Amino acid sequence: MAKLYEGKAKIIYETDNPDEVRVLFKDDATAFDGKKKGSIEGKGECNAAISARLFEYLEGQGVPTHYVERLSAKELLCRQLEIIQVEVVARNVAAGSLAKRLGLEEGLVLDRPVLEYYYKSDELGDPLINRYHIRLLELATDEQLDELDRLAWKINELLYEFLDERGLRLVDFKLEFGLDSEGTILLGDEISPDTCRFWDVESGEKLDKDRFRRDLGRVEETYQEVRSRIVDA
Amino acid sequence: MAKLYEGKAKIIYETDNPDEVRVLFKDDATAFDGKKKGSIEGKGECNAAISARLFEYLEGQGVPTHYVERLSAKELLCRQLEIIQVEVVARNVAAGSLAKRLGLEEGLVLDRPVLEYYYKSDELGDPLINRYHIRLLELATDEQLDELDRLAWKINELLYEFLDERGLRLVDFKLEFGLDSEGTILLGDEISPDTCRFWDVESGEKLDKDRFRRDLGRVEETYQEVRSRIVDA
Repeated sequence: MAKLYEGKAKIIYETDNPDEVRVLFKDDATAFDGKKKGSIEGKGECNAAISARLFEYLEGQGVPTHYVERLSAKELLCRQLEIIQVEVVARNVAAGSLAKRLGLEEGLVLDRPVLEYYYKSDELGDPLINRYHIRLLELATDEQLDELDRLAWKINELLYEFLDERGLRLVDFKLEFGLDSEGTILLGDEISPDTCRFWDVESGEKLDKDRFRRDLGRVEETYQEVRSRIVDA
Repeated sequence: MAKLYEGKAKIIYETDNPDEVRVLFKDDATAFDGKKKGSIEGKGECNAAISARLFEYLEGQGVPTHYVERLSAKELLCRQLEIIQVEVVARNVAAGSLAKRLGLEEGLVLDRPVLEYYYKSDELGDPLINRYHIRLLELATDEQLDELDRLAWKINELLYEFLDERGLRLVDFKLEFGLDSEGTILLGDEISPDTCRFWDVESGEKLDKDRFRRDLGRVEETYQEVRSRIVDA
């Protein structure tokens, strides 16, 4: 079946059903707006498995997601979405661009979790934006944004607890949402060490894509470890 | 009297009255986070005169400001403020960092004006922030931010009309607010070609600090021209 879209970490194929797509998870890894490129053996399979498990969990807790079923080791069947071009980032601990932007020490536990919107634009480097920018660019309606906020906070609460029980601290994560053919907002994309920061609850060790970004070593093993904690537990 | 603070474009001196300060406007000009430095002859006097006139106008329209009176060509007497470390930027036309951030053509008239918050921090380069960041850093309360929004929109409406009548299009501008000794929010800082973008209504010519930033020439003459249109008219 025809390829609909190829991104940095996934390929989307059409299926016989116009409302569904096949999502293939690649081993390719990029960082710093694509300036750093590489491959992480087994990443596609790990991220497919982790995403499937977390989508199933969230669905069970009442969060509408695009996930339908796992088709193979690296492939998920998902609902076809018209993606909202706003990335929603939720943060519980200071790290990455937040620490840099506000001059905070990495690891600072945030008294009040932070939500951020980023404009999904490779050319512009996914800039931070606010609600006025979103209205101006007509990326989403105010009602849709309210729903994104509500879902993001709910997902943060659910995932934080789920992961904590598995020895993973949810530092921050990026969500993408989209509209299905009926205009309902569903959680899309993936939930994996590529899109979340996970730190070991005990040691504080980074168990996510920062190992690749910052050349911390044991990259492949980390993806396997996270898969094991989330999927096998 | 003792110098309380020296910034890039102004020096604040104490006065006999602990609730009031003397603000001296300098000819010094900086741009790009201080990377570009220079001097614009007569700027201090122009900006003191322009700010005084605009503060008087806004006060007359019910906007509380720190302005008390003009003491000399380059000096204003102002209320002492505890500055809120959030710069509020209002935009009517795409220019500067907004055009860059969102990939918009400079000059695009915004269907819906945009309000932005920036963290007033030289070390961090005055980054764009949102309400969650402001809560986290405790830069302002939600109630104070609501008041800043309300005042910024009112000021935008008042200034836009006032300037339009004088042949100046108000493209965008930066406001700073602070609390007086009783905790009342007052508009502070200055309102001048250093903190606003003014374009000639007819020709679209830039009549503000962009002439210095971008080496457009006729810098001194431009400050005089804006002073003339705003103060003498």
